[in-house]
Amino acid sequence: MSYEDNIKKVTPYVPGEQPAGDVIKLNTNESPFPPSMHVAMAIASIDYDSLRLYPDPDATVLVQAIADYYKVDEEQVFVGVGSDDVLAMAFQTFFNSDKPILFPDTTYSFYKVWAALYDIPYEEIPLKDDFTIDTLDYQKENGGVIFANPNAPTGVELPLNEVEEIIKANPDSVVIVDEAYIDFGNASALSLVDKYENLLVVRTFSKSRALAGMRVGYAIGSAKLIKALKDVKFSTNSYTLNLAAIRAGVAALGDDEYFDTIVSQIKDTREDTRRKLEQMGFECLKSSTNFLFVKHGDVPAKDIFEKLREKDIYVRYFDLPRIDEYLRITIGNNEQMNSLMLALEEIVGN
Amino acid sequence: MSYEDNIKKVTPYVPGEQPAGDVIKLNTNESPFPPSMHVAMAIASIDYDSLRLYPDPDATVLVQAIADYYKVDEEQVFVGVGSDDVLAMAFQTFFNSDKPILFPDTTYSFYKVWAALYDIPYEEIPLKDDFTIDTLDYQKENGGVIFANPNAPTGVELPLNEVEEIIKANPDSVVIVDEAYIDFGNASALSLVDKYENLLVVRTFSKSRALAGMRVGYAIGSAKLIKALKDVKFSTNSYTLNLAAIRAGVAALGDDEYFDTIVSQIKDTREDTRRKLEQMGFECLKSSTNFLFVKHGDVPAKDIFEKLREKDIYVRYFDLPRIDEYLRITIGNNEQMNSLMLALEEIVGN
Repeated sequence: MSYEDNIKKVTPYVPGEQPAGDVIKLNTNESPFPPSMHVAMAIASIDYDSLRLYPDPDATVLVQAIADYYKVDEEQVFVGVGSDDVLAMAFQTFFNSDKPILFPDTTYSFYKVWAALYDIPYEEIPLKDDFTIDTLDYQKENGGVIFANPNAPTGVELPLNEVEEIIKANPDSVVIVDEAYIDFGNASALSLVDKYENLLVVRTFSKSRALAGMRVGYAIGSAKLIKALKDVKFSTNSYTLNLAAIRAGVAALGDDEYFDTIVSQIKDTREDTRRKLEQMGFECLKSSTNFLFVKHGDVPAKDIFEKLREKDIYVRYFDLPRIDEYLRITIGNNEQMNSLMLALEEIVGN
Repeated sequence: MSYEDNIKKVTPYVPGEQPAGDVIKLNTNESPFPPSMHVAMAIASIDYDSLRLYPDPDATVLVQAIADYYKVDEEQVFVGVGSDDVLAMAFQTFFNSDKPILFPDTTYSFYKVWAALYDIPYEEIPLKDDFTIDTLDYQKENGGVIFANPNAPTGVELPLNEVEEIIKANPDSVVIVDEAYIDFGNASALSLVDKYENLLVVRTFSKSRALAGMRVGYAIGSAKLIKALKDVKFSTNSYTLNLAAIRAGVAALGDDEYFDTIVSQIKDTREDTRRKLEQMGFECLKSSTNFLFVKHGDVPAKDIFEKLREKDIYVRYFDLPRIDEYLRITIGNNEQMNSLMLALEEIVGN
């Protein structure tokens, strides 16, 4: 018996590459635009003397700002170090049944990793052939439900009435809707949090708020769910969000005009890119996100991925069943998209 | 059966108060001095555009800086969101035996909370009457060992040869030495990490580096232990340290002169304060930290605590067996200590 026998064995999630240097980075769904200038000002105005003190463990100003923005009570808001922190804690807090939790077979691959980490039984429910969810699949006994809406890496959004169908069918389970990309889509489940006590909606500042570098995520749900999340958070680490993250989050939320501008721009570029890709022989799933999930009629995705990489253009390729013929391409700015198009024309062109 | 039956029930740790406004805050062992000016410059020079990108998930520059500073390999360094994040992950990673882990009955109260959170059996070993550790108590079968050195809230340091005795006696357990306060003490167990593969030393930037507000902690140990910690970290949240925290940590580590100055100043003030308190009828444990653990011969600790609070002076009182007659007083700057002395003279004086 050695100490090594008692070490937790896990297979970690592998994040997208973070290449350094002058590359075109379309592989981790970051924003091509900087965060709001309000964020720059908030960080520049930090009194560095105050860094000697612990941050507010409740991140009260950020919780208040989120509550005000979405017109919910402060008791309905939980904040964490990016939505991954929030989701990991939600798995740990809510998924303690002997029955399997349910999630789609093609989705954010961290769900499986968290289930393994916390010894949660799970069942992967196949998406339909068109990568949409069949809501009937989620109406059986389970220990919890989680799905991303819009889904990743497909970009496909489930209409709100179908989201509600799943929540309604599972009053005895916590249903987590992971809305990392919803600002680029249509209808958020936030409108349902006051109606269903078992609903938790998880969001992030990393995508539409262009703040991946500061690590700010949050959840909105019933006061009961939020209280339970806070108990686990305060059993893990009292002070998770540092002062800079708290200030940056508040600042980003305070600049709606800029937010609307960059989100619209990304959506416009997405649709423009989709049309061009289709002309080049790509098939594109309908996207409600800041990325496109595409496959080419003739050239294998893996080849395209590798040839783009040689040209210092990074997109995401998943060597996984069902999706190994697809590429996930983050929507960048016009210049990045033009470079991508030129490169793709060379790779798939005649 | 309701969803509530599957919610994790825990009793969270209660951090020290974070009162706002113009108070004298000697209750959470923060530094009375600001962090290094290098930190201010590092934060001011963050290119806010870069915040749209995810931070380096490995926090490579910070890991390198710590490795260089302590002359260990990069593979021996793990970083997290304060030492609480590192410790929580270490509990989760290393303490998976059916046998109880061992820690002192009077120590950092988060140990019990983490044990409960991760369902780890534990045994609290009574400290001796003088609040020192009896190393023989840690030479029995166990699932792991953790102790703070110097200990909190007592401030008492175990000599390095006795620390080594415990590590040596437990080759089949991971032994965690929590050195949050060691920079104010004498001998770190870091000198032993190359000798004992089962040793993990955990440290923080929150105390001696005056950086509580940025949340930076780290662990140093054998490459095997660090690899296991990283696997759990990358199964929880890919990006824990934000860009500001990474930069601030590197900057703080690069200003040794300032570090030496503020640590010496705090140690001098500590000894000066101790002498004055003893003259006032307080009994003070010998401290190797940035706080004093004291009790008065006549006036109950709780009364002193409450009367100080009325004067807007916050110290820490623990209503716990064995230590409910003590106060933990953080060492502040000269002005804060003078105000404390005047207040105490009024409270305990004749």
